[in-house]
Amino acid sequence: MAEDNSIFIGGKPFMNYVTAVVMQFTTKNADEVIVKARGKFISRAVDVAEVASKRFLEEQVGVKDIKIDSEGFQNKEGRDVRVSSIEIFLKRN
Amino acid sequence: MAEDNSIFIGGKPFMNYVTAVVMQFTTKNADEVIVKARGKFISRAVDVAEVASKRFLEEQVGVKDIKIDSEGFQNKEGRDVRVSSIEIFLKRN
Repeated sequence: MAEDNSIFIGGKPFMNYVTAVVMQFTTKNADEVIVKARGKFISRAVDVAEVASKRFLEEQVGVKDIKIDSEGFQNKEGRDVRVSSIEIFLKRN
Repeated sequence: MAEDNSIFIGGKPFMNYVTAVVMQFTTKNADEVIVKARGKFISRAVDVAEVASKRFLEEQVGVKDIKIDSEGFQNKEGRDVRVSSIEIFLKRN
């Protein structure tokens, strides 16, 4: 789930991800955590970042930067598909 | 659907939104368009911004800024609920 301080959002229970973010800042004393997601999980990544920073780490952590990107490729049927991604950079205030 | 140059993403067909964004820049000659969404439509807003800027307006328009936010309130059952939102600022290069 983590590469350095990255949390990759998928289909596990929502609070797992919030806890993972909060623990990076508290137990592991990270200065920055990157919440990442692709496709339909992008909405969830925003939810995780908001709940972690506003409910659990209020005044301590904020959104520093947000990047979006996408990559195009051909699926099995030969159709052009584009999948979006997001990176939300949370940083200690 | 629009307040000034804002496009609010919902459940209509995907290409409606892409077309709306592209037309703001082309037909209406806008300098900036803001793609907005709440909750589960956030993923879709990122898709719309990516397809409009990378496939249709390549080299002409880019992502200038992204903001996320959330608001907490109580639902009918008295439970605390938080709904996230996103604003993606697309700007002519």
